Amino acid sequence: MKRIISAIVAVAAALMATGCTSVNEAPDLAYSINSPDGTLTVYAGITADGTPLYRLERNGEAVVLPSRLGFELTDGSSLADGFTITKVEYDTADETWHPVWGEERDIRNHYNEMLITCEQRPEGAKAPQSGVGATDPDYTGDPGNPSGKGAVMQIRFRLYDDGLGFRYEFPQDNKLRYFNIKEELTEFAMSGDHTAWWISGDYDTQEYNYTCSRLSEIGAHSGSTRINNASATGFSDAGVQTALQMKTDDGLYINLHEAAVVNYPTTNLALDERRMVFRTWLTPDAEGVKGRMQAPCVTPWRTVQVCDDARKVLASRLILNLNEPCAIDDVSWIHPVKYMGVWWEMITGKTQWSYTWDVPSVQLGVTDYRALKPHGQHGANNENVMRYIDFAAANGFDAVLVEGWNEGWEDWFGCQKDYVFDFVTPYPDFDLERLNAYAHAKGIRLVMHHETSSSTVNYERHMEAAYQLMNRYGYDAVKSGYVGNIIPYGEHHYSQPLINHYLYAIQRAAEHHIMVNAHEAVRPTGLCRTWPNLIGNESAMGTEYRGAINPGHTCILPFTRLQGGPMDYTPGILEQDMSITAPGQHGKMRHTIANQLGLYVTFYSPLQMAADLPENYERFPDAFQFIKDVAVDWDESLYLEAEPGEYIVTARKPRLQTLNSGRLSGKSGAYQFVYKDGKPHDVWYVGGVCGDKAHEATVALDFLTPGVRYEAVLYADAPDADCDSAPQTYVISRSEAAAGDVIKVPMARGGGFALSLRSL
Amino acid sequence: MKRIISAIVAVAAALMATGCTSVNEAPDLAYSINSPDGTLTVYAGITADGTPLYRLERNGEAVVLPSRLGFELTDGSSLADGFTITKVEYDTADETWHPVWGEERDIRNHYNEMLITCEQRPEGAKAPQSGVGATDPDYTGDPGNPSGKGAVMQIRFRLYDDGLGFRYEFPQDNKLRYFNIKEELTEFAMSGDHTAWWISGDYDTQEYNYTCSRLSEIGAHSGSTRINNASATGFSDAGVQTALQMKTDDGLYINLHEAAVVNYPTTNLALDERRMVFRTWLTPDAEGVKGRMQAPCVTPWRTVQVCDDARKVLASRLILNLNEPCAIDDVSWIHPVKYMGVWWEMITGKTQWSYTWDVPSVQLGVTDYRALKPHGQHGANNENVMRYIDFAAANGFDAVLVEGWNEGWEDWFGCQKDYVFDFVTPYPDFDLERLNAYAHAKGIRLVMHHETSSSTVNYERHMEAAYQLMNRYGYDAVKSGYVGNIIPYGEHHYSQPLINHYLYAIQRAAEHHIMVNAHEAVRPTGLCRTWPNLIGNESAMGTEYRGAINPGHTCILPFTRLQGGPMDYTPGILEQDMSITAPGQHGKMRHTIANQLGLYVTFYSPLQMAADLPENYERFPDAFQFIKDVAVDWDESLYLEAEPGEYIVTARKPRLQTLNSGRLSGKSGAYQFVYKDGKPHDVWYVGGVCGDKAHEATVALDFLTPGVRYEAVLYADAPDADCDSAPQTYVISRSEAAAGDVIKVPMARGGGFALSLRSL
Repeated sequence: MKRIISAIVAVAAALMATGCTSVNEAPDLAYSINSPDGTLTVYAGITADGTPLYRLERNGEAVVLPSRLGFELTDGSSLADGFTITKVEYDTADETWHPVWGEERDIRNHYNEMLITCEQRPEGAKAPQSGVGATDPDYTGDPGNPSGKGAVMQIRFRLYDDGLGFRYEFPQDNKLRYFNIKEELTEFAMSGDHTAWWISGDYDTQEYNYTCSRLSEIGAHSGSTRINNASATGFSDAGVQTALQMKTDDGLYINLHEAAVVNYPTTNLALDERRMVFRTWLTPDAEGVKGRMQAPCVTPWRTVQVCDDARKVLASRLILNLNEPCAIDDVSWIHPVKYMGVWWEMITGKTQWSYTWDVPSVQLGVTDYRALKPHGQHGANNENVMRYIDFAAANGFDAVLVEGWNEGWEDWFGCQKDYVFDFVTPYPDFDLERLNAYAHAKGIRLVMHHETSSSTVNYERHMEAAYQLMNRYGYDAVKSGYVGNIIPYGEHHYSQPLINHYLYAIQRAAEHHIMVNAHEAVRPTGLCRTWPNLIGNESAMGTEYRGAINPGHTCILPFTRLQGGPMDYTPGILEQDMSITAPGQHGKMRHTIANQLGLYVTFYSPLQMAADLPENYERFPDAFQFIKDVAVDWDESLYLEAEPGEYIVTARKPRLQTLNSGRLSGKSGAYQFVYKDGKPHDVWYVGGVCGDKAHEATVALDFLTPGVRYEAVLYADAPDADCDSAPQTYVISRSEAAAGDVIKVPMARGGGFALSLRSL
Repeated sequence: MKRIISAIVAVAAALMATGCTSVNEAPDLAYSINSPDGTLTVYAGITADGTPLYRLERNGEAVVLPSRLGFELTDGSSLADGFTITKVEYDTADETWHPVWGEERDIRNHYNEMLITCEQRPEGAKAPQSGVGATDPDYTGDPGNPSGKGAVMQIRFRLYDDGLGFRYEFPQDNKLRYFNIKEELTEFAMSGDHTAWWISGDYDTQEYNYTCSRLSEIGAHSGSTRINNASATGFSDAGVQTALQMKTDDGLYINLHEAAVVNYPTTNLALDERRMVFRTWLTPDAEGVKGRMQAPCVTPWRTVQVCDDARKVLASRLILNLNEPCAIDDVSWIHPVKYMGVWWEMITGKTQWSYTWDVPSVQLGVTDYRALKPHGQHGANNENVMRYIDFAAANGFDAVLVEGWNEGWEDWFGCQKDYVFDFVTPYPDFDLERLNAYAHAKGIRLVMHHETSSSTVNYERHMEAAYQLMNRYGYDAVKSGYVGNIIPYGEHHYSQPLINHYLYAIQRAAEHHIMVNAHEAVRPTGLCRTWPNLIGNESAMGTEYRGAINPGHTCILPFTRLQGGPMDYTPGILEQDMSITAPGQHGKMRHTIANQLGLYVTFYSPLQMAADLPENYERFPDAFQFIKDVAVDWDESLYLEAEPGEYIVTARKPRLQTLNSGRLSGKSGAYQFVYKDGKPHDVWYVGGVCGDKAHEATVALDFLTPGVRYEAVLYADAPDADCDSAPQTYVISRSEAAAGDVIKVPMARGGGFALSLRSL
């Protein structure tokens, strides 16, 4: 991933003087850069009292009105005004990098950059000296600040054609050394009462349905959009989470998010509804501190994505581009995973994670499970796991997740129990060694499960042993979970210590060549570029919410949650009626079968589950065929139709390199589909999902290779299909297709479609 | 350690009925036990509204007036009243156990016991059923409480001849499963306005001078007794810490403390000065919870030691006896340690822990020390460490501590820096491998130093690697430090998560055959019985406070801090004037040289330091001889004179087994003293320390073997000696002595003496 940068550093010598000359309409904002294509312009500067501001335009129209930058610190000082701009530097970059896995083979990182250095010059300060040494024996100043600098804060702007990223940087030569943030004051002043797809602000969960409303309606509706959750901590009537997707009345799509959240809390956005101004609202730690900083350091990037077409939102790689390159030298052990799991049967209540009802509570190492009476409903038993392995192997999957395999599930939840799991001791009816051997013999890997119950203190104590166990038995992926309130007490899922924990777990996993799929962890902000062993996250309302999920939910997530990285949404639920899956249970999911097939293409993830039970797939073998055939990693992705909450149609071309990379399974379902007759065919998959009202997709097959004929298999909603009244009616049709053909596919309410195209 | 118990279980069949008959003066307190010698009697029972109470008498006189027992819980419920006593059981024990190290070879554990079971019977509850199974498919009760029990709380009283221990127990068959303590309500109602030696209540430090006052004066003086400390969190005007030593006007010594604090916060005591009632005041965690409980579980023991002679306080083994037996099977690697250290020179400011002044702050793994200019004052450099090794080896020591050996000391303190040390990376001028090899060749072990800066999250992340490094290079002991505010944020040094951390560190160390000496950790409560690799703690104001230490301080600590376990007080400072030890520094310590020698006997610790600089010992070779000669582990200990704050005179007979146990040094100074001419002599060491006014000690040599003559070497204060005006004048006299001799030894203000006795 060689980086090609042509540096154009322009240091304005006259900048040291105050009273910068106006260079544009806003007299304070003296410095600006354009995006490479000239569409976007960001202006920055300071007011007369030294308050840093920025604003963003698209083709001369305001996207972000003049907005404040800065911080309040816990020591009572502020980094909000009194600044002088001491330096402005410009740069540009145009490079192409290649993700280990992703929606395409090549990602272009093309931006113009402006770095503004501000300083709060101390009263009567000595003139700055060069160097940071304090070895002069007569030196009597601050040994940590030998050059006598005031507080130095830099703001780095990177402007892309599809949006802006900016962050704060604190260089070492600085009065600031260790400082704690009370509030980050960064604002995003909107130019109107836009339409927004939002979820309530929260320090602990983003597992909510989205609400579509005007900005001015957020405060009034915020409370009612919450649902009961294992751990939810709201903070403001008009708080929302990132990524926040908006649309202006002029049809502009504006998305506020953040990138590369490392050693810093995650932000929410608090809305001043009077002024339509969002402000960062960081997640506090147990002492109320919203960020503990040590210079030199940087904050995460604040991002403002701006597109004139919803499809461009989905095509944007702004968040990934703002992250650091891959930090893992040898990535050969990282691979996409299509998997099944002993999981949906517990979610639906058919079986249990737990083993016994014979104890009121568990004390690990004391409770002797072999002496207890099993309740007979334990899902992770040898026989049942082998049944899943057999089914997964027979249908071209790579792996089988097994939850509830380890001691402790009788009272794991809601007790803020510190020593809740040890991550190494299986229940008596789960033969760790035998089941792994059985799986490996069939070309299947078992996926480990580490539910931490949010006791990260406990997880870190056992992590090394847990990863070693995985290495010993041949697990190469773990699904981790963070359900419930955090231990250390008083921390939140999105506070700085937890942000650090999640990355710690990923880094230690990388040392053990283990891939991580973290559930209930913080929403991703593109860190998978740097740590591609983070192959998945949940961090949004996923399939497990069953009947509570709104039909349009999956048409919003790619605009919001998925901007930061892939989601283990766990699609593929072909039986919507929970009473059929788990007799005695109730509830119905609101999607059609074709919708679930479409998700495998519209939701990008290198980790895709076929979440339903084997017996449910056996009832719909023709529909299940698409799940078997579809790939999960791509050379190319095209966004054919899109509108938040309404519909998404995506076409993707599988990455042959991955299919052929010698994974354990070797001949996965997608491999067999692409390598028909032992040779690679030109293959595309197209998927569509539809929200709360039906939509006819127009699929123009412009992307097919001209002159080549393709076999097209379309999995579509039947004419009467409907997510509520007829969720299981679908039509599968086979035809030939060629470049230039246009296919019209009606999608039902909560419906969708899938289309496979393979060259003949 | 075989336990011999003659069980006398008396279950009163009529107890289920309410309205117990009066059996003593207090009509509510129907149940009682006597101490084995009949001196003490504890009564317990409940009031008409079901509030549990106890009281304690000595020879019919009140020691603790009727005092409340119970809890408030965070869910709004209470375990404070509404109880019925459902069962009372009695037991007795008389066993002798043998500590791995200690003040004597044999410790007798002799007590009578009473276990009172109380239940809050729920309204309209089903009659209790036997068993805890919930496998009946028609069962509709609480699956965690199948027997339908109410809240069950037991109080276990153990009465010894020298005091009472009691604790709460919560059995499994209980409505209570997981419950959080808002307040523990345990009271200790004093019978008068006793004299007390106390330090201010605090959640984070006990590094204070003691104040001697009436109980009624505590509140008024509490604030002024505090001194600046790295991390201090007081909670109440009239809060004090345990162990609290009191004396009644009748000459009874009452000591309130606790034993076996495991998975529970440490308590302070809040005094209701109106009623002279102390109440437990637990240390809250970051969410304000004062104890997270999971039944079955027990609290620490609350202790009331009662002695009619101050010497019996020092001889009491109440706290150790209330702890669990040794949990380590193979203890052969645990041994006493007499050591020196590259430490006092940093404390006094002669050298630095840090290596450079060339960086304003450090980022481990980023900061390249080899590229920085050393400031030239780094104490832990190869040459200096070798000098200490040479000196320690030449003078019969076992080990040399080296602080400041690892990267990070430039900004380790006061920043609440998470990743503050990695515990494995030495400074460029500290050659870990070479120095260990050099030390081992001379029969010396290096003692590792792990300053955590109270970032226990970071310490736990690096602990395994740190211990492995110690194993690799042959370190078998670590001094750990917990200076500053705790990370996890919002926790305190004495809150439950930290209590768990300290034990975690000790247990993991035991797995690595590493002995632990934890500074700034919680005050010990006898856990060294269970985990004898915990060979030391600081947990009080130690020598490092230099001139701030009151002369009487060392005459109080054995009554208070040392009741829970040994202290690494670091005695042996022969040069009181800091400007001589570290030119340019100032301050004078307030003790005589003879006082420092006496401390090696009056302060029991299996880990004893000769803390002063080699060059200071070279100036006083005759006095230093006692430090070289003295042993640190004992077969027998006698307390000849004692009065809190005034004087302590102790005689001890060394444990030959330890001296002969083949430690690395093999022929330590004490070994050479005892094994004169290659054969073991009968040896006793006597030490005295004196407080703020001079005292003449009377040493009756009744303990010597009759008919044997001994060489006696007395190290005494000179007639003009005084801790302030003449701290360095002493007289060394040699004579012969025999059983029955009585030696009168004048001790100066802040003075003391040492006496070695070796059979001829």
